[in-house]
Amino acid sequence: MEKLHILKIGGNVIDNPDLLDNFLADFAKIKEKKILVHGGGKLATQLAEKLSIPQTLIDGRRITNKDTLDLAVMVYAGLINKKIVAQLQALDCNAIGFCGADGNLIQSKKRVNSHVDFGHVGDLFTNSVNSELLDKLLSMGICPVFNAITHDGNGSLLNTNADTIASKLAISLANHYEIKLTYCFEKDGVLLNLDDNDSLLLNIQPSDYSKLKSENIIASGMIPKLDNAFEAIEQGVKQVKICHAKQINGIGTLIQKS
Amino acid sequence: MEKLHILKIGGNVIDNPDLLDNFLADFAKIKEKKILVHGGGKLATQLAEKLSIPQTLIDGRRITNKDTLDLAVMVYAGLINKKIVAQLQALDCNAIGFCGADGNLIQSKKRVNSHVDFGHVGDLFTNSVNSELLDKLLSMGICPVFNAITHDGNGSLLNTNADTIASKLAISLANHYEIKLTYCFEKDGVLLNLDDNDSLLLNIQPSDYSKLKSENIIASGMIPKLDNAFEAIEQGVKQVKICHAKQINGIGTLIQKS
Repeated sequence: MEKLHILKIGGNVIDNPDLLDNFLADFAKIKEKKILVHGGGKLATQLAEKLSIPQTLIDGRRITNKDTLDLAVMVYAGLINKKIVAQLQALDCNAIGFCGADGNLIQSKKRVNSHVDFGHVGDLFTNSVNSELLDKLLSMGICPVFNAITHDGNGSLLNTNADTIASKLAISLANHYEIKLTYCFEKDGVLLNLDDNDSLLLNIQPSDYSKLKSENIIASGMIPKLDNAFEAIEQGVKQVKICHAKQINGIGTLIQKS
Repeated sequence: MEKLHILKIGGNVIDNPDLLDNFLADFAKIKEKKILVHGGGKLATQLAEKLSIPQTLIDGRRITNKDTLDLAVMVYAGLINKKIVAQLQALDCNAIGFCGADGNLIQSKKRVNSHVDFGHVGDLFTNSVNSELLDKLLSMGICPVFNAITHDGNGSLLNTNADTIASKLAISLANHYEIKLTYCFEKDGVLLNLDDNDSLLLNIQPSDYSKLKSENIIASGMIPKLDNAFEAIEQGVKQVKICHAKQINGIGTLIQKS
């Protein structure tokens, strides 16, 4: 099967222009087919403060009200996405930026929770990804660049977790491609001790993961990423790597089918 | 030749949600291949005020400084573009939103003027449009939705006139399609007297236009639109119509090769 690389960069990479530039230069050099998924960064929150848009947190989770969604669409699907696309074009990578509404590429369902109304937040489902159109675009030599905005198919945009988008894209294309999914952030990978880079785990098996999670050794911020990673592996993705944005060809934590 | 409709909606349509909804419903019903180009509206200016980003005007023309460009990218390529795309998807129109950087679809050159530095403003040139990729996308059943942001190919985004984008797109595809280009705004067309809808000109010939312009009868805001219209007709576009956004199948001012 042909190889496809799907890379996701988090907000900490977006917020560091030098790190982002270096990452995009490395990304553009990948010769195989590739997809980039990017998170948000601090700009939306900074703008919300300047515009006095109240940010509501319930149990530590942000509620996406109407104004917060509009800001997310402006910043993620607008400024960040288009700047990345323009930079990739300058690096001879034929990128097109997509939110989920574009070409109906990623549909989601508004999250329903009887206890908390999370607002305009969308969760992905089994057939969220329009893999037929996505595959056609890849075959045309296009490099899709996805942000975290999806749509419900009824005219509403929704804010979605970018880690989950990366993993769902990988799963939806796993029948057509040998997929390597890479989560890039500001740490070297999964660390046993967050303050010690030498505590990097080079591999994790599902059995290790359950144990580490039950012993509270895995940092809570890492758990959604790892849950997405293991789901991708279970559903046919060849390899998931979690690494520093500087190390897409280097060291990191590998997860593979055992 | 196959027919292609290119429609442009201005800021006044964007700023009027009912008018925009009705327009999009009519647009989605067009059975032939189609492209939408949209302008900006007031939101970027309102946000600039709220964020205290100074708006500089020189000789009545806005200077696009760095912060103003970022806002334009957020609002035009982000919020407005993606909302329109989500609405069109809900109307069963397979829209994808593009700025000029996406797929290198529209390249521009930063405007150089020895008297005034207009900032991050891009002008189109003869081969600005990547008509090969655009034609492929149209053949896939995609409806492209363009905003006014373009790029210089070297990593910089630029703000560009949306009327000119519509006319350049039409010209670049005139060898492949029989093109009808429609400029939609909040008036019925070209009026001899701005306050009197009965003064609508149903047709304009180039000779009429020169005369009306020299006699200062054409409203100054209409001149760039008409210049773009006549250039398009000169360069192979079959028909240009200037009409109210409610009247894409109705009355308006027609310009055709005599």
